[in-house]
Amino acid sequence: MDETMDTQQFELDPLLADTTEVVGHFPLCLVLLSKDANYPWCLLVPKRAAVTELHHLSELDRLQYAKESGYLSEAMVALFAPDKMNIAALGNQVPQLHIHHVARFKDDAAWPNPIWGAVPATEYTAEDFDSRRSRLRSALACDFFTAADDINLS
Amino acid sequence: MDETMDTQQFELDPLLADTTEVVGHFPLCLVLLSKDANYPWCLLVPKRAAVTELHHLSELDRLQYAKESGYLSEAMVALFAPDKMNIAALGNQVPQLHIHHVARFKDDAAWPNPIWGAVPATEYTAEDFDSRRSRLRSALACDFFTAADDINLS
Repeated sequence: MDETMDTQQFELDPLLADTTEVVGHFPLCLVLLSKDANYPWCLLVPKRAAVTELHHLSELDRLQYAKESGYLSEAMVALFAPDKMNIAALGNQVPQLHIHHVARFKDDAAWPNPIWGAVPATEYTAEDFDSRRSRLRSALACDFFTAADDINLS
Repeated sequence: MDETMDTQQFELDPLLADTTEVVGHFPLCLVLLSKDANYPWCLLVPKRAAVTELHHLSELDRLQYAKESGYLSEAMVALFAPDKMNIAALGNQVPQLHIHHVARFKDDAAWPNPIWGAVPATEYTAEDFDSRRSRLRSALACDFFTAADDINLS
């Protein structure tokens, strides 16, 4: 597979683009923050065209994904001190591979159930969203993370 | 961490033990099959004591988990030809790290929603369960998988 070509063809699914904002980029994955204020909820989207399953990633990409997922989880735990992380690749409605990373709390809106379909999304104020995104960027700061607002790195 | 000691202390959570049967062992993970007949539903449980989060695994274990998860997913796709794999580490009710691997179909009981809490579990006949477990063992056959009925390899 020509991965350079593949990356160039990557486009974010419109529903994912509509319900999230970009936090930044790892080498493999785009880091998104959900606009649903019920939970600190990030998504990793590997920048590979036409990939719908984790096991479709190349072996090298799977290892890179494991690294990025672990790093994001650790950053979210450090930042939010949740009771549990929930990590899930579902994709029954949006086939483009995207992996949810959700910080869960015993007093959150859906606990102890999974978040999907549990309660309607609630909106952040613009100030609260920007604050959370900014704190995430600080928590993720390292030599393999680049903060960005766009799905394309300029 | 003394991983040999850690493996020796591993015990399967009673709720997981009650709702699944053992299919076999990878080097890191126990492979379980859910007794819920609604879906072809396997679980991977890393044989490490007191681990509740994927990112708690050592770097070496994370890479081994990625390998075993990918291998199990490919085997389930080959065997069941699902419309989508759902892979999730939730653990809000059973903290012991366990990662669901569920073969999903557009005509299954919960589609397109996640399976957790969607519909009551249904029972396999003993014959159907044994047949599915046997086919899984055949699909998983390789030099790093050992079929077994027990959580301890004799």
